[in-house]
Amino acid sequence: MVKEFFYPKTIAVIGATADSKKFGNAVTVNLLENEQLESELFPINPKSTEILGLKSYASILEVEKEVDLAIVLVPSKAVPIVVDQCIEKNVKRIIIVSAGFGEINEEGKKLEQAMTSKALKKDIRIIGPNCVGIMNVDTGMNASFILSPPKGNVSMVTQSGSFGAACLYEMQDQGLGFSKFANLGNMSDINLTDLLGFYLEDANSEVVCIYLENVIDGRKFYEILKKVANKKPTIILKGGRTAYGASAAASHTGSIATDYSSLKAAIKQSGATLCENLNDYVAAIKAFSFLPLPAGNRVGILTNSGGSAVLFSDNAEEFGLKMAEFSTDFIDKITPHVIPLVKKVNPLDLIAGANGESYYQVTKAMLDDPNIDIVVPCAVIPTFLEMTLDEHYLGVIKAWNETGRKKPIIPIFMSGELVDKTKEIAEKELAPVFLSPREAAFAVKVLIERKKKIQK
Amino acid sequence: MVKEFFYPKTIAVIGATADSKKFGNAVTVNLLENEQLESELFPINPKSTEILGLKSYASILEVEKEVDLAIVLVPSKAVPIVVDQCIEKNVKRIIIVSAGFGEINEEGKKLEQAMTSKALKKDIRIIGPNCVGIMNVDTGMNASFILSPPKGNVSMVTQSGSFGAACLYEMQDQGLGFSKFANLGNMSDINLTDLLGFYLEDANSEVVCIYLENVIDGRKFYEILKKVANKKPTIILKGGRTAYGASAAASHTGSIATDYSSLKAAIKQSGATLCENLNDYVAAIKAFSFLPLPAGNRVGILTNSGGSAVLFSDNAEEFGLKMAEFSTDFIDKITPHVIPLVKKVNPLDLIAGANGESYYQVTKAMLDDPNIDIVVPCAVIPTFLEMTLDEHYLGVIKAWNETGRKKPIIPIFMSGELVDKTKEIAEKELAPVFLSPREAAFAVKVLIERKKKIQK
Repeated sequence: MVKEFFYPKTIAVIGATADSKKFGNAVTVNLLENEQLESELFPINPKSTEILGLKSYASILEVEKEVDLAIVLVPSKAVPIVVDQCIEKNVKRIIIVSAGFGEINEEGKKLEQAMTSKALKKDIRIIGPNCVGIMNVDTGMNASFILSPPKGNVSMVTQSGSFGAACLYEMQDQGLGFSKFANLGNMSDINLTDLLGFYLEDANSEVVCIYLENVIDGRKFYEILKKVANKKPTIILKGGRTAYGASAAASHTGSIATDYSSLKAAIKQSGATLCENLNDYVAAIKAFSFLPLPAGNRVGILTNSGGSAVLFSDNAEEFGLKMAEFSTDFIDKITPHVIPLVKKVNPLDLIAGANGESYYQVTKAMLDDPNIDIVVPCAVIPTFLEMTLDEHYLGVIKAWNETGRKKPIIPIFMSGELVDKTKEIAEKELAPVFLSPREAAFAVKVLIERKKKIQK
Repeated sequence: MVKEFFYPKTIAVIGATADSKKFGNAVTVNLLENEQLESELFPINPKSTEILGLKSYASILEVEKEVDLAIVLVPSKAVPIVVDQCIEKNVKRIIIVSAGFGEINEEGKKLEQAMTSKALKKDIRIIGPNCVGIMNVDTGMNASFILSPPKGNVSMVTQSGSFGAACLYEMQDQGLGFSKFANLGNMSDINLTDLLGFYLEDANSEVVCIYLENVIDGRKFYEILKKVANKKPTIILKGGRTAYGASAAASHTGSIATDYSSLKAAIKQSGATLCENLNDYVAAIKAFSFLPLPAGNRVGILTNSGGSAVLFSDNAEEFGLKMAEFSTDFIDKITPHVIPLVKKVNPLDLIAGANGESYYQVTKAMLDDPNIDIVVPCAVIPTFLEMTLDEHYLGVIKAWNETGRKKPIIPIFMSGELVDKTKEIAEKELAPVFLSPREAAFAVKVLIERKKKIQK
């Protein structure tokens, strides 16, 4: 049902335009931009015969071929008319980007309900209105007015379009790639539950993330969430937890807020990972996108900066993690690779002069050690002793690759812009970088929680 | 007492070298690099007669002039000898960067205590050993082996050298500038309390920040902290709050941890701002470095992204902030500058199409409004409708500048790399950008708390 939205052979953009001051332009440009996209495009605009090099049609009824997906970007007043035309043309899937419906007032709500009922009678399904659109990054289809991220294994559904865009861009900046994206707007027809049903079955959607504000049918949502979370890591960022937040959410989506405490319990019960802020959300998604689950909960830490490991250790205790104990075997193994001043305790502080080779050797020893389940290499980027800005991270990744990426690594690299080079390598290597001790500890916590869930 | 460390006319670097594989090179290069620095430099190295273009001396005793500050970078075994020479030469201030003393074992502790007693008898003061050094950014003196940040009003003292470096770089990346920096290492003589005494009196140190692991003389620390916090915003990031963290801290500094709950109470009582993670720490410092204190606690929010404002509102409630109510005057004023779809409630969701001009007008109206004390402009960077990546932030700053920067603004700009342009402008304008709703709400909270403290 939802899948057809993501794999259309033919797409009509109703309200397409060469005028870059309009949303209809942004969507058309986004669809045209990716040369990989095989779908045929039909711009629809009564005032044009050609748009951005494509033949343009006065109405969708003039398109000779069957249209699988129509994206509607005309002013709200004209939306019912073009939706009627889509129904007449038997376009099975319609995305209404245009705003000005249920999120505005009761009249708007009735209007969108009327369109939806009409469409449903003909088995035509609608996403929106009031949304930024959807993307199938796998096929190169960007049917939205925001920028497409690189390919990857994460699929997102968001109840706030622009905030969803911000999340995409933040995650892209941290090396994450995507498979599918959807913003559902007012959910007059297709809702969160429907979307999750699709992600459940979609093989490329290996990690599912949700920005959630409110749930309409709690029981159905819980059932599908349980299924998805059982099969794939599923991460939820919940907005509107408080009275202020819920009131803000009601204002921009036009829906009534869900009681947070019961929802929180339900999400926990479902096995999904609940986050309450953007940093935790991105950290959890990074962990699940890039890392295997740990065999146990024993954490080994190496660092060139005492304070970084201290802060991580604080968070580790707060999140209930367990410090690994170093065996004499392990200590013997690392001794040749660290200076004599180094105390062989966990966290292992290699001191500021430790280089990439030392990081490689110690990370490898930890990855090989049967008493350590999760390896946390912390580093402040050194600017002295002829060390390069990336050698520590390169050492960590080399060790991880050589050990077949069997254990999770949680590299914490801090130093502002000096970390840019490390982030570049991480992106290329499909490996994570965590930018603060807290988010790193949160990532470890969610990996361990998921491991426990799966073992049940 | 401490001031003399930061304003030497003559500086000797003992262990200076042209060999860039050594810390003695990093410090010499850092001192030479800033052309603004007026202090005369004397490299000391028995194996050289010239280092990096400067005449080099075999020992400090050969320097003809008086030496105000000596920085010691020789191997630990040689440290007592060169310190003896410094005492003979009557060098009044010594920074021992070299490690291998009290942080290693009891013997090391005795050794550093012996050096310190000898020096103190001659009224000679020591910073270190086992530290990264100090900086006076105002005068261009970087007497450390890490990179110097740009000038500004923040002064930092950190109990972890490398982590202090990471903090500096993170803060620099977020537009902050510095006046003084100090890492005290093992604090065999000069301790945190001494340093704070200097920052208390130093006019350019307008905002004081501390990375704290343990406190030796709790009473004295509390007394000085109270004085500093009374005069200037004082922000503390505490590492080693938990058993794991405290154990990690004891390992790298060689000191015993302070009980956190009583310390927490004391810090709160002193009026300083306590943070428990890096994001909060940087957010608080940004707030105090760039912003005036608010007259009251009523927050007005504008946004182009519903979800961003929802998350901020959640945090606002969690942190006890208060949403401003919009007056009819205010609504009349903004109505011409927003599209009809916009609901005139707080948070004010201007919807994705809102441009820089709209941000300018609405921010200005909020800054002018007597019912709003703090203005929070949220934005997801748009990539459509011919909008530029920076126009929203430029609009906000224009409004802030035109109203004389009298009220605090808390701009939340999210979108990964798309925010880079905004960050550049912020740096140039000496204005803040907050990168997530949570840190922004924390910033508002600490500003309100300080206002309340000052009113008492």
